Amino acid sequence: MRIHGQSYRSIFVAGDGWTVAVVDQTRLPFAFEIRHLHGADDAAAAISDMIVRGAPLIGVTAAYGVALGMRADPTDAGLERVVELLGRTRPTAVNLRWALTRMAAVLRREPPAHRADRAYEEAGRIADEDVAACAAIGRHGATIIERLSAAAGRRPVNVLTHCNAGWLACVDWGTALAPVYAAHESGIAVHVYVDETRPRNQGASLTAFELGAHGVPYEVIVDNAGGHLMQRGHIDVCIVGSDRTTATGDVANKIGTYLKALAARDNDVPFYAALPSSTIDWSLDDGLRQVPIEQRSAREVTHVRGRADDGRVLEVEVVNPGSTVANPGFDVTPARLVTGIITERGIAPATRDGLLSLYPERAGATA
Amino acid sequence: MRIHGQSYRSIFVAGDGWTVAVVDQTRLPFAFEIRHLHGADDAAAAISDMIVRGAPLIGVTAAYGVALGMRADPTDAGLERVVELLGRTRPTAVNLRWALTRMAAVLRREPPAHRADRAYEEAGRIADEDVAACAAIGRHGATIIERLSAAAGRRPVNVLTHCNAGWLACVDWGTALAPVYAAHESGIAVHVYVDETRPRNQGASLTAFELGAHGVPYEVIVDNAGGHLMQRGHIDVCIVGSDRTTATGDVANKIGTYLKALAARDNDVPFYAALPSSTIDWSLDDGLRQVPIEQRSAREVTHVRGRADDGRVLEVEVVNPGSTVANPGFDVTPARLVTGIITERGIAPATRDGLLSLYPERAGATA
Repeated sequence: MRIHGQSYRSIFVAGDGWTVAVVDQTRLPFAFEIRHLHGADDAAAAISDMIVRGAPLIGVTAAYGVALGMRADPTDAGLERVVELLGRTRPTAVNLRWALTRMAAVLRREPPAHRADRAYEEAGRIADEDVAACAAIGRHGATIIERLSAAAGRRPVNVLTHCNAGWLACVDWGTALAPVYAAHESGIAVHVYVDETRPRNQGASLTAFELGAHGVPYEVIVDNAGGHLMQRGHIDVCIVGSDRTTATGDVANKIGTYLKALAARDNDVPFYAALPSSTIDWSLDDGLRQVPIEQRSAREVTHVRGRADDGRVLEVEVVNPGSTVANPGFDVTPARLVTGIITERGIAPATRDGLLSLYPERAGATA
Repeated sequence: MRIHGQSYRSIFVAGDGWTVAVVDQTRLPFAFEIRHLHGADDAAAAISDMIVRGAPLIGVTAAYGVALGMRADPTDAGLERVVELLGRTRPTAVNLRWALTRMAAVLRREPPAHRADRAYEEAGRIADEDVAACAAIGRHGATIIERLSAAAGRRPVNVLTHCNAGWLACVDWGTALAPVYAAHESGIAVHVYVDETRPRNQGASLTAFELGAHGVPYEVIVDNAGGHLMQRGHIDVCIVGSDRTTATGDVANKIGTYLKALAARDNDVPFYAALPSSTIDWSLDDGLRQVPIEQRSAREVTHVRGRADDGRVLEVEVVNPGSTVANPGFDVTPARLVTGIITERGIAPATRDGLLSLYPERAGATA
């Protein structure tokens, strides 16, 4: 996608042909900076320090981290070491483990002298596959916006989104935002209401940044406001991402997603989750009972990062000192509240049969 | 209520018999300071600078402001001037206008020499009436918590509240928090989940402060988390306040209330609004169509006030610079989602017949 007219991916190989460049997401939205990773240690630090975040991007960064490691030490021991190093960065990230397993399997078959080149090739392939999946999600999802646009007449289609499931979380296009970008690219007037997304404010910082930089009209709202806007008819469709989806269509996503799905249902607003099929866990059939919810640190709630009048970016305490805090990171939106699931193969009803109609090869794998 | 063992009201006459003392709510939660008001100008500034906030407290502060004004100039012209001065501070506050009208009506009947004394007496009466109404709301609401406590066995009853409808918004006890305090005082184990309440964070700052200082166990959560907690059975009852209530039981309250009411309904959690009958607008029968929703300043969303590591309290920018922002201040929870309305006369179903059963004298006034 574009940053003020110039095209970027969130991760790419620099002009020297081997340095890995990433958008430093810890500096957004107040500064847009590219960081250069010169070794596997840099890649590991980029993941653990959340310079890169978002499941697909973490996977691709780990893959390029292996490539950087192979330049330094392409031996079997070097390969095991770099996979272990990168695997420790975000222990619960499914894509991280998947990408490392794939890289290791490919590289073990190569003689050490070829491993670095082969690793760059495979990492590039993983990145391109992610871009292709997101672009396909965009094409399928854009048909929903297009249909709503025909009904809306001349006014823009109003999309509500929660958190950041945009290109900054992926390599390009994004998941929930891919349909928005695709519709925008094809000349459909779209306007996005962006949930702030406390506690980490990924909506107000990352989603707002990437929509603004690409030129898509948007407004930031607090997480409390979406229900009211739906009551007043200001939202045509909700599109969110998903961290994990059951075979029956339950959607685990950033905390607060469920509340918006309830409001969408109460006001007859269609509610979609857009996701690559890699986030579907075919072994699960009950999201509420089976998806473990991460309890995150109190400091995410008690402190907020922002920019002071003097330009310094710092954290301030916003909660009564000494307060106890609960901070569940995700919630589960039951399939009954989900109008449809947008994947790289098309749009399916949020049911087992619906998902299997797109992924018939999974028929044996479901719970 | 108590601040670390000492009893306070949010407004009181100081030991000298005439200075008016208020808790400076702009300094909470990082500092607890009492401000002294020495004239009507001070009272007007306390209201417009939000040193005092909350509908009932604004009314009482205006009443004492008139009393301070009468000490300086008890003439008819002085009375008109002070009523006009105080009336300009928060143009949309219904209680402000009501208190000033009552004070003016009482004082016009008095000879100027008696007006100051009479004004203090009447302001004190308004304050005491508010305390009595809140205490009655507390007694009635506590029966709900008591019943839930019997069902909960030994564990505490978990109450979710939104925004600040505690004693800091009133004179003592509060509205939504009055049942919590009353239950706590009578030895029932209560635990409160406090919604942060973006954009102004009144939950994380004021509600957390007053519960903590009084000794009621609580946890702060982001506004996104309440639905998840209800799905997991962690909430026994929701109790919120109301800024305006229709004769049919629709509840206009701080933005985000509606989302919690939806989650409560979806998870069979009882949802109550606690309010003095003065907030019932008997002329309205459709909250969604008839209650105007204030659009508040973008800066409330784009900036957050907090305390930096060096102890300074400052505002930081938290939204992508240049973003457009929508900031509706309130939403309307339809009566169908409200289990009951707790007033100073008892608990009524959120219906016209229910409210009229408590306020039969209003039968002629309803829409």
